[in-house]
Amino acid sequence: MATQEKATVENAQLKDIISHAKEYGFVFSSSDIYDGLQAVYDYGQMGVELKNNIKNLWWKCMTQLNQNVVGLDAAIFMHPLVWKASGHVDSFNDPMIDNKDSKKRYRADVLIEDKAAQYEAEGKVEEAGALLAEMGKLLEDENLNGVRDLIISEGIKCPISGTANWTEVRQFNLMFSTQVGSVAEESQTIYLRPETAQGIFVNFLNVQKTGRMKVPFGIAQIGKAFRNEIVARQFIFRMREFEQMEMQFFVRPGTEMEWYEQWKEARKAWHLAIGIPAESLRYHDHEKLAHYANAAVDIEYRFPFGFKEVEGIHSRTDFDLTQHQELSRKKMQYFDNDLNEDGKPYGNFIPYVIETSAGADRLFLMTLCNAYTEEEIVEGDSTKSRTFLKFHPALAPVKAAILPLTKKDGLPEKATEIYDALKYDFNMIYEERDSIGKRYTRQDLIGTPFCIAVDHQTLEDNTVTVRDRDSREQIRMPIADLKNYIEKAVSFKSIFEKLA
Amino acid sequence: MATQEKATVENAQLKDIISHAKEYGFVFSSSDIYDGLQAVYDYGQMGVELKNNIKNLWWKCMTQLNQNVVGLDAAIFMHPLVWKASGHVDSFNDPMIDNKDSKKRYRADVLIEDKAAQYEAEGKVEEAGALLAEMGKLLEDENLNGVRDLIISEGIKCPISGTANWTEVRQFNLMFSTQVGSVAEESQTIYLRPETAQGIFVNFLNVQKTGRMKVPFGIAQIGKAFRNEIVARQFIFRMREFEQMEMQFFVRPGTEMEWYEQWKEARKAWHLAIGIPAESLRYHDHEKLAHYANAAVDIEYRFPFGFKEVEGIHSRTDFDLTQHQELSRKKMQYFDNDLNEDGKPYGNFIPYVIETSAGADRLFLMTLCNAYTEEEIVEGDSTKSRTFLKFHPALAPVKAAILPLTKKDGLPEKATEIYDALKYDFNMIYEERDSIGKRYTRQDLIGTPFCIAVDHQTLEDNTVTVRDRDSREQIRMPIADLKNYIEKAVSFKSIFEKLA
Repeated sequence: MATQEKATVENAQLKDIISHAKEYGFVFSSSDIYDGLQAVYDYGQMGVELKNNIKNLWWKCMTQLNQNVVGLDAAIFMHPLVWKASGHVDSFNDPMIDNKDSKKRYRADVLIEDKAAQYEAEGKVEEAGALLAEMGKLLEDENLNGVRDLIISEGIKCPISGTANWTEVRQFNLMFSTQVGSVAEESQTIYLRPETAQGIFVNFLNVQKTGRMKVPFGIAQIGKAFRNEIVARQFIFRMREFEQMEMQFFVRPGTEMEWYEQWKEARKAWHLAIGIPAESLRYHDHEKLAHYANAAVDIEYRFPFGFKEVEGIHSRTDFDLTQHQELSRKKMQYFDNDLNEDGKPYGNFIPYVIETSAGADRLFLMTLCNAYTEEEIVEGDSTKSRTFLKFHPALAPVKAAILPLTKKDGLPEKATEIYDALKYDFNMIYEERDSIGKRYTRQDLIGTPFCIAVDHQTLEDNTVTVRDRDSREQIRMPIADLKNYIEKAVSFKSIFEKLA
Repeated sequence: MATQEKATVENAQLKDIISHAKEYGFVFSSSDIYDGLQAVYDYGQMGVELKNNIKNLWWKCMTQLNQNVVGLDAAIFMHPLVWKASGHVDSFNDPMIDNKDSKKRYRADVLIEDKAAQYEAEGKVEEAGALLAEMGKLLEDENLNGVRDLIISEGIKCPISGTANWTEVRQFNLMFSTQVGSVAEESQTIYLRPETAQGIFVNFLNVQKTGRMKVPFGIAQIGKAFRNEIVARQFIFRMREFEQMEMQFFVRPGTEMEWYEQWKEARKAWHLAIGIPAESLRYHDHEKLAHYANAAVDIEYRFPFGFKEVEGIHSRTDFDLTQHQELSRKKMQYFDNDLNEDGKPYGNFIPYVIETSAGADRLFLMTLCNAYTEEEIVEGDSTKSRTFLKFHPALAPVKAAILPLTKKDGLPEKATEIYDALKYDFNMIYEERDSIGKRYTRQDLIGTPFCIAVDHQTLEDNTVTVRDRDSREQIRMPIADLKNYIEKAVSFKSIFEKLA
């Protein structure tokens, strides 16, 4: 992570995107009048629309286009035993080490990973591999003293103090806890969920029975999760409060690998359909599987700071449901009365699970990075540069701007009339201040696909000009055609059809 | 509150609605395989769709129909000074008292209010008024010993132990706290926000400047909030984790009362537009204003347990912005270059604020209670009863069910074809199990407005029958007409138009 951090700070394009995001109302630092809260961000008036569009699109693709996927909205607060069953209480830890001179705390594994990366950069590929393998073994054995010895024997120093004056390595749980209940004797430590998935698992039978679902079927959920991360300084890529879009797909044991492959394909197709170019996406198989998984792959997007995970597809086996069955002593079995090859019902089993887990904030950042475009425009003898956000129109925060050419001669009234006729269908902006050129520029900067100018001819023949954000071309069309023209471009249907 | 609790337990209709909500996938107890978590609930596959429809409708009505209202999505985590400025750290308290015999804890003010209600029920209206007035004065003076003395002198007893063996009265803060940051020296106590409003106030200038907003303008937000409430046992009416839909409208000082009146009207009109009958709604002016308000009214809905608040409209003056300006030392002023009556710019001022604050969960419960309908149907010589959910079609979780009459003769294939053609436009269910009558009943129970039956005639002439949920009447129509027919009924437009 620390190597990424350096890359991030050095990355000029990310810096530009961060300041653009702030200047045009996409993302603000949380509580910034109080100098912010580390690794927490707020979505501004443009950001919330973009994020909602991403979330709505994902939701509809999951629950509306698939007959056998339904939704759920479980609470952030859950019974503490949920996190005992899932393994989070005992092992959702990072190994931390403090430098006694700088008083700074680091993730011990990241210090070692950075050292390995340094070996690699120096061409010492074997040393790098050996170091990572040794660390892996020590962590697996929970040999924290061994990890510390490794840091010291490798001569790893604190980047702040420059010394190797290290404390012990200790495990640090990443869950936030709080006390619930007002009666002292009855108060209870609960956790803010570190993932949304468990809300789906504990409701598996509620949904299956009340919705009469048959395997294979899925449950989709969008919601906040919280992790007390060491700050990663990658803007909204790694936050302490973040939002997940997860779908757990319940299947017959033994069929999980075919469903894993199917969802792996389907999810990549989704990213392509929203306009991410193929060369900016790749699969990354996990080198080391989590304790609950028998297959796992990330879909990575090429951020300005490198290829990084935006979504994971995991074959989680029956681990979670089995754990909950054991701890809750409630049967988590499904009865399958379909007939198998021998003509007998499949009967009772605990389903296997394929998970698709996307970060809503990461998809937001991916969409923003992908849309951020700088181009040179030749105008006569000179060139000027233009910045615009090339969002897929279905994801753009504002669909159209209604712009009277001047503030007089009845143009504002006519423009308002058009605004009022279209506002039921689209999120729009009405703007009459500044020159038309400045207003076009402003709409480019927030990614509005269409600028509709109302001029004197409009008063005569009820036509307007429609400027296209990407080509900057203007066409004249009757007001009566606007609705269909915009609808065609901004509807989710154009994305749905690519997925059909 | 305790009187309401009794009413709730006694209320058979609420009980029916709660079990209906669980049985048909609307609301489950949180973590119920672990016997639940008090005052926390999960929304099931039907509930999440209903809730999303309510939230989307509110969002569009606020941000899309109003040129001068934009959205925001601030994080749940905020800087702790935010809650110092807002007054929550110092005074977001409930006065609590414990009974030493039963070990039960009560809100001291609620015990006294219950006593007053008892006086009223006995016709002792004056005594009731005097008691409430005395309590009000004691609480205002923060005289907690006086409150305890009042409880004892009124002979109020614990309903569990039956004794008056009371502890002191103590203030109990309702905010949940947690520790953020992994470095011991740098860790910080932060709170889970008890209201979403402050996220809007601290971002007031971010939004105003980056969005070039001019007063009057509003910022709308939907998000979770958390309060460590004494459990109220009113299902999802009062939860520890809940969701707010708030809009803060920033105006010139001196104009706040006209905007207050306007939003008061507008918000009631919204409740009427989604199908809540006028006789089930009323205004309730606050008897006692909060420290930040100069006018406040609730919109109340007649729940099975009585008229209760679903939304509040508050004139919050410049209290919050002024507090934040003082504590953050950042100017929260707006510069108004419009000209006043004297032809001079209004200049710098801290805007006044009108707030509309609705509980998403309460609107959900209102919508569910309002939709829950039991009727007697005469069939020949006998009558039978029918239960159905009469949601406004725009809010119904599922818009249409596609039902092949039988599982053979190519009917499922034809039905699937219709499903696939309409799934891009509507959330639908495909169901081929059980008799058509049973399937109609099931759709009634989840409130699906249209049941589309595919029969043998469909194969011949491409027509289907469409059954109306409320009238149970069936009409035959071409498949080609389905989309427009459903669209017309389920679109938000029918609601928008009532608000125009």
